[in-house]
Amino acid sequence: MGETEYVFVTGGAGYIGSHTVLELLNKGYQPVVMDNFSNSCKESLVRVEQLTGKEIIFFKADILDKSALRKVFSKYNFLCVIHFAGLKAVGESSTIPMSYYRVNVGGTINLVEVMKEFGVHNLVFSSSATVYGEPQYLPLDECHAVGSCTNPYGKTKYFIEEILKDLHHAEPNWNVFLLRYFNPVGSHASGRIGEDPLDAPNNLMPYVSQVAIGRRPLLSVFGDDYPTTDGTGVRDYIHVVDLAVGHVACLKKLHDNPGLKIYNLGTGQGYSVLEMVKAFEAASGQKVPYKVVGRRSGDVASVYAATTLAYEELGWKAERGLAEMCTDLWRWQSSNPKGFASTVD
Amino acid sequence: MGETEYVFVTGGAGYIGSHTVLELLNKGYQPVVMDNFSNSCKESLVRVEQLTGKEIIFFKADILDKSALRKVFSKYNFLCVIHFAGLKAVGESSTIPMSYYRVNVGGTINLVEVMKEFGVHNLVFSSSATVYGEPQYLPLDECHAVGSCTNPYGKTKYFIEEILKDLHHAEPNWNVFLLRYFNPVGSHASGRIGEDPLDAPNNLMPYVSQVAIGRRPLLSVFGDDYPTTDGTGVRDYIHVVDLAVGHVACLKKLHDNPGLKIYNLGTGQGYSVLEMVKAFEAASGQKVPYKVVGRRSGDVASVYAATTLAYEELGWKAERGLAEMCTDLWRWQSSNPKGFASTVD
Repeated sequence: MGETEYVFVTGGAGYIGSHTVLELLNKGYQPVVMDNFSNSCKESLVRVEQLTGKEIIFFKADILDKSALRKVFSKYNFLCVIHFAGLKAVGESSTIPMSYYRVNVGGTINLVEVMKEFGVHNLVFSSSATVYGEPQYLPLDECHAVGSCTNPYGKTKYFIEEILKDLHHAEPNWNVFLLRYFNPVGSHASGRIGEDPLDAPNNLMPYVSQVAIGRRPLLSVFGDDYPTTDGTGVRDYIHVVDLAVGHVACLKKLHDNPGLKIYNLGTGQGYSVLEMVKAFEAASGQKVPYKVVGRRSGDVASVYAATTLAYEELGWKAERGLAEMCTDLWRWQSSNPKGFASTVD
Repeated sequence: MGETEYVFVTGGAGYIGSHTVLELLNKGYQPVVMDNFSNSCKESLVRVEQLTGKEIIFFKADILDKSALRKVFSKYNFLCVIHFAGLKAVGESSTIPMSYYRVNVGGTINLVEVMKEFGVHNLVFSSSATVYGEPQYLPLDECHAVGSCTNPYGKTKYFIEEILKDLHHAEPNWNVFLLRYFNPVGSHASGRIGEDPLDAPNNLMPYVSQVAIGRRPLLSVFGDDYPTTDGTGVRDYIHVVDLAVGHVACLKKLHDNPGLKIYNLGTGQGYSVLEMVKAFEAASGQKVPYKVVGRRSGDVASVYAATTLAYEELGWKAERGLAEMCTDLWRWQSSNPKGFASTVD
């Protein structure tokens, strides 16, 4: 690689962000991270620097702060923006919806406007499989109807997708990737970075690992009467490193000037809650006590991705299986029982 | 009425805004108007003051300017906010979508956040029948599916509706009226205020009246092969004064603490383009030459409202018929051939 290729990464200190920054560095890109640490900490980036032996350019700022964005854009000529920053707790989004709309939707509008001002027209956006709502068929392909999400978090992802589609329609010189994540789990193989929820985890696997390490007494399994093999909900878990690599695959695709592209990032393989618990017990050697409680409103039986489009067009597919997801998660959890907390200044 | 009841009206200098401000003054409310004059001018408010003999409190500011909003909210204790401010040109919304999302969606989020800060929890929002998308049945009642709008303007209205529903779900002490306007036409019976589009009108009747007065040579009728009586599109035109009165009806309803309410504001009666042209010719005594051109993408054959809900719950229904719409529009157009322009300082 000749000239330095700068990539602006919003929310780059977070779970998926930090793993993607690591992959970017490994592939020779120069990430420029902006994060406000509302749900992350700088230690993740320090560790990525240690793991790669390379330097991350970093700004502590909020994407709602347009002048902060302008300051960064005036310093670097960005190849692309990868936009992770946003609020992501489904339950919380129903109690403080306005914050979700302001940060997620308003933040994206801000970012796009500053990108326009500086002539940067390549954007990779963190969307979610939640935009599909209740599956009308499985596996979910990218043509499946979207928009029937019932919680504000999911709606922000859907609204942003629509806004970016309209942007691309009005200004076809933009390249926009809408990446619909399924359920990211695991951590970098080093166990040095990983998911570090500030409060009680919203997602299954961080909860499972916190039970295994003794931070929480018991896992609640929400419903065992779904029409699945063992009655518990089935999801498409994807190793976070695979997910991160998927973002780098989009950057490579930019040379083709692809326009607006929508890709599922999943494995195509669904696992039930109990299958995940068992796999994690096997990988960790720890018992994960659980109790079955009632269904959670809004949950559906099974969700998993059709993965052919990303493979055909990006040459990307998930490589890491269930055992690796669990082993890596446990390595992170067991060597960082309190997450990054012990090392935060 | 004892103590002064202040009502904050965003976009109060615009077409529907100025007519509503007039009705508010007539009913003893004290409107406090904020407008940035992006598509309106102060003359409309001056004339409302002349017509009513009452004073309007006015601030020239943008709803995107949070500190300007805060300044106004700190001065008055508002009974309610009526939120008209927003961009409204369907065609333009496809060419500059980000402006529509920023102003309409971002502006509403701003406004709601300031309302929260100041403990004002009553909101009347200008939505649109466009949220229904293509009618699955007629008349359109408030239970009809929403969200299949194809243009960014319509999407902003739909997104805002969803945001306000989520707000009310999270904070049930709010009273929120989502008013779905059909096609507002006409003007105050004095002919002193009316619709004054800056550029070529986007809607039928302002265009018709500009042809009648000689500002434009010819009306283009978009398609005469729809499955309607004469083949031209059928819409539910509502007199702007009836629409304005509908807003006052919502204010009266506030005493019942109604929560979130959605009402169509229409007449329930559809008229075709050619019926409207003929009615306007009869009312004005002017010929309106037209030519039929191809259909416009996104247009549908017929749209008209079910009106029973607003009548049952608000005691409101449209009182003014087609002839009155046309006579009043012509009075405004003929006595103000260039709109407010001649009197603007």
